[in-house]
Amino acid sequence: MTIKTPDWVKNAVFYQIFPDRFAIGSQTPKGHWQASSLEGWDATPTLQGYKGGNLWGVIEKLDYLKDLGITAIYFTPIFQSASNHRYHTHDYYQIDPMLGGNVAFQALIEAAHQKDIKVILDGVFNHASRGFFFFNDILENGPYSPWLDWFKIHGWPLSAYDGSKPANYEGWLDNRALPVFNHDNEQAREYIMQVGEYWIHQGIDGWRLDVPEEIKTPGFWQEFRTRIKAINPEAYIVGEIWFDASEWLDGTQFDGVMNYMFAVPTIAFVAGDRFRRECSQFHYHPYPGISAEEYASKIKNLLHLYPWEIQLTQLNLLDSHDTARLITSLGGDQKSVELATILLFTFPGAPSIFYGDEVGLIGAKDPDSRRGFPRQEKWDLEVLNYHRKLISLRNQYPALRTGNYQILSAEDSVYVFARSLEQETIIVAINTDSDAQRVNFSTSGLQSTPSHLLYGDAQISWQSVEEQNYLELTIPPQSGLIIG
Amino acid sequence: MTIKTPDWVKNAVFYQIFPDRFAIGSQTPKGHWQASSLEGWDATPTLQGYKGGNLWGVIEKLDYLKDLGITAIYFTPIFQSASNHRYHTHDYYQIDPMLGGNVAFQALIEAAHQKDIKVILDGVFNHASRGFFFFNDILENGPYSPWLDWFKIHGWPLSAYDGSKPANYEGWLDNRALPVFNHDNEQAREYIMQVGEYWIHQGIDGWRLDVPEEIKTPGFWQEFRTRIKAINPEAYIVGEIWFDASEWLDGTQFDGVMNYMFAVPTIAFVAGDRFRRECSQFHYHPYPGISAEEYASKIKNLLHLYPWEIQLTQLNLLDSHDTARLITSLGGDQKSVELATILLFTFPGAPSIFYGDEVGLIGAKDPDSRRGFPRQEKWDLEVLNYHRKLISLRNQYPALRTGNYQILSAEDSVYVFARSLEQETIIVAINTDSDAQRVNFSTSGLQSTPSHLLYGDAQISWQSVEEQNYLELTIPPQSGLIIG
Repeated sequence: MTIKTPDWVKNAVFYQIFPDRFAIGSQTPKGHWQASSLEGWDATPTLQGYKGGNLWGVIEKLDYLKDLGITAIYFTPIFQSASNHRYHTHDYYQIDPMLGGNVAFQALIEAAHQKDIKVILDGVFNHASRGFFFFNDILENGPYSPWLDWFKIHGWPLSAYDGSKPANYEGWLDNRALPVFNHDNEQAREYIMQVGEYWIHQGIDGWRLDVPEEIKTPGFWQEFRTRIKAINPEAYIVGEIWFDASEWLDGTQFDGVMNYMFAVPTIAFVAGDRFRRECSQFHYHPYPGISAEEYASKIKNLLHLYPWEIQLTQLNLLDSHDTARLITSLGGDQKSVELATILLFTFPGAPSIFYGDEVGLIGAKDPDSRRGFPRQEKWDLEVLNYHRKLISLRNQYPALRTGNYQILSAEDSVYVFARSLEQETIIVAINTDSDAQRVNFSTSGLQSTPSHLLYGDAQISWQSVEEQNYLELTIPPQSGLIIG
Repeated sequence: MTIKTPDWVKNAVFYQIFPDRFAIGSQTPKGHWQASSLEGWDATPTLQGYKGGNLWGVIEKLDYLKDLGITAIYFTPIFQSASNHRYHTHDYYQIDPMLGGNVAFQALIEAAHQKDIKVILDGVFNHASRGFFFFNDILENGPYSPWLDWFKIHGWPLSAYDGSKPANYEGWLDNRALPVFNHDNEQAREYIMQVGEYWIHQGIDGWRLDVPEEIKTPGFWQEFRTRIKAINPEAYIVGEIWFDASEWLDGTQFDGVMNYMFAVPTIAFVAGDRFRRECSQFHYHPYPGISAEEYASKIKNLLHLYPWEIQLTQLNLLDSHDTARLITSLGGDQKSVELATILLFTFPGAPSIFYGDEVGLIGAKDPDSRRGFPRQEKWDLEVLNYHRKLISLRNQYPALRTGNYQILSAEDSVYVFARSLEQETIIVAINTDSDAQRVNFSTSGLQSTPSHLLYGDAQISWQSVEEQNYLELTIPPQSGLIIG
C-alpha cells in the first residue's frame, strides 16, 4: 500500500488556539449571546470559569497570525459545550453560542481561507457530555430511553451528578461528566461518522482526534479516514496519541499524531534537569536530562518508527493545553525554550505553537496553562522575534520542511544535524551547555557545504581532507545555529 | 385599534397530532436514527415510553387527512426533547431526531403546503429542560456559568435529579425537569423571539403557545406578535389559555386561544351528568350537567367575551393531549360525543380534532389519552363517517364558518341556533334527551326558512303566522340536526 498524507501539512506551521482564551471580538453581531458574567481576562484561570473568547476575535487576529507566518490553525473544541474547554460536547452540529455560533464559524472559515490559512477542528468522539441529547434522554427516561445502546449503561438508576452514588454508566476516566459512547453500536458509530463528514463539507481542513486510542471498535478509524478522504483527500487527520502510535500510523487511519514523542526527548536534551517534575503529565515526563548522544538515539528511533510520509505530517509540539507551558515547566529558563523551539521548527512534520507561547505567556498545568492571550504591552518581544525568525526560515527553506534528516554529530551537549532537499542543505546545531563548545566532524553524505549563518551566532569553518569535508563549529553557551 | 386575525383560520379545520403516536413512516432515509427499543404501538402508553411515530409517517398520512377535510395541522411539540411528549425542549432549533430531524420537517412542510394544509407548531417558551444548553451549562458549572440570568436560580448547589434535596431553581409547577426561563433577562427574551421568527421563516403557519399566561414580563407577547406578523401577517398565534383569556385577546397578542371555555359547557350540556369526574383536569370540569337554557347563557357569555374577529379564530376543541378523550370521559356514550362534535363543527372558530377521535380512539387521562393511532381494522367507521360528514358540511357552507350566531331556542334538553352569512342560513338543533322532543319557536331575524336536512333525522315544519315564521322540529332522542 502506498501511504499518502496531505502535502499542505508537510509545509504547514500550525497555531493551536484554545478559543475561550485567545481573543474577544471588538464587535459581535446581533444574535451573539452576551454572557452575564465572565472571569477577568487576566485573572488566573479557574477550572470552570469562562473568559469569553470567541471566533469573531480570532477573525480579527488572522492578520497577526498571517504576519507571524502561520499557515494553519488547530482549534481545541469549538462545538457547543457546557465547559470552558469544550471537551464536553453538548451538540456536535453547533458551534458554541459564546464563540459566535455557526455564523461566526462560517465567517472564520471564509476569512482564514482567503488568507490561505487552513483550519482543523478537535473531534471529541470517545465521549460526549451529560447534556448531549442522546445521553440526556437516558438521564431523563432511564430504561425507557430509546437510545440506551448509544452509551454504556451498567444499571439503574443512573447518578450523573451525585458522586456519592454509583454512576452506573461508563464515564471516561471514571468522570461522570464524560459518558463514553458505545462505538460498537452501529447507530452511534454512524452518527460520529456523519459528524466527521458534515464539518468537512462545511469547509474544515481536517480533524484532530481526541483520545482516539480509547475507541477500540475494529475498523472504526479506518472507516473514518475513508469517509473523510472521500470528501476531501487533502483533509488532515491527526490523532492525540502520546506514545508509540505505530498501530494508528499504518496509512489506513491517521496522517499523524500529536508528536509528544518528539517533545519529550527534545525538552530532556535542551533543559537537562531543569524540568519541574510536578509539570509532567501522562506520557509527558521529560526528565532526567539526556545527552546529545541519547537524544540522537531517541530521534533516530522516532524517525524509524513511522513511514517517512507520515513523519512529514506529524503534528510537532513542545507543549499544549494538556501540559504546563514549557517556559513554566523549565522555571523560566528562556534559553532552553529557545533551543527547543529551534529543534521544533527544524524537525520533519508540522510545528505547532500553543497560542501565547510565541509572546512568552506562562502557565503551570491545566487550568493555568490556558490563560488569556496577553495584551501587547505584556508581550516578550525577544521571544516573539525568535519565533518570527524561525517560522520565517522554515517557510523560506523547503529543506527544513521536507528535506531528509541526517544526524551529523552528537556528543555531550552538542547536537548537529542536516536537512537536505535536492541542492539545498541546512545544518542545525544546538549547544545546551552553559559554556561555549567547539565541535569538529565530517559531513559525509552532504552534497554541499553551507556556511551562511541564518540563525544564531557562531564560528563556522569548513575543511576538506582527502575529499572528506569537515565542519568545525564554535557555538556560544546554550545556543543554537541554523546554517544554510 | 382594528383587530385583525388570519382569514385562513376562520375557514380551517385543524387536526391535532401528538407526533410520537400518529404514524411511523414505512420508509426512513439514511441518517434517521433507529431507536434501539420502543414501546409497542398498541400497548398501553406509559409516562416515559416512546412509540416511535415520526414526521415521515405524517407525510404518508396527508392524503388521509386531506380526504377527511382537514386544512391545518397543529403539532404538539416536535423540537428535540428527551420526553415522548417533547414539552421538555432540549433544542429549539432542531426537530427531534426520532421524528426525522429537520430534513423530515422540511419534507413535511413542503408536502403539506402542496396539499393546502397549514402547519402550526407548539412553542414551549415558559420553560426548557435540564438538557437545554443554557440551563445545562448552569448544572455543569454552577455559579461559574455565564448564563445564570437565563433561569431563576435561588441558591447552590442545584439538585436537578435528586428530589431529596432542594432544587434551588424554579421549575414549572415545581417540576425540576422544567426549568423556567427568566423572561426578564433581555438575552433569554431575545433568544425566544428569534426561535419564534426562525420557524416562521422555515415555513410554519403559526404558533400554538404553551402556558403563555405564565410569562408575565410586560410586553413579551406583544413583541412576539409584532415580530411574527412582520414576517408573515397571516401567521396564526394561539395561546393555551383554559380560562377567560380577555387579557390576551385584545388584538395585540394572540389571535385566539384553545377554546376549553367552549368545550366545558358543550360537554356539560350534551352529556348531562355522564362526565366522569376523575376525567376532569385543571379548568376542564364539565359537570354537573346543564340545561339548554344554561348552555345558551354560557355560549352568549363566551361570544361576548372577545371581539368577533377573535371568535372566528379561536381554536375550538372537545379534548386534547391534556385531557382524557371525550368518549372515555363519557363512559363510552357515543351519542353524546356525536352531539358535542356537531356543536364543535358548527361553532365560530376553527374546530380541532385530537388525532384518533375521528375513528373512536379511547383513552383516559395522560398518558392513556396518547395511544397509538389505531390500525384501520380497529376504526369505528360510524364515528369516522359522522366526522367526515360534519367536516364536509363545514367546508361546504361558509355560514358555518363565518356566519353570525343566533340562538333560536333553548329549553330543557333542546338547543337550536342559526349561523347566517349573507343569503345562507344554517340551523342546528340538538336534543340531549333520551326521548324524542318536539319544539316550536319563532325565527324572527332569520332571512330564510331553510328546510333541507343536511344532517340527522327529523320532522321539519315551517309555519307563518302574522308575518312571523315559526319552525317546528321533532328531534329523535339524543340526536342533532343541521338544516340548510
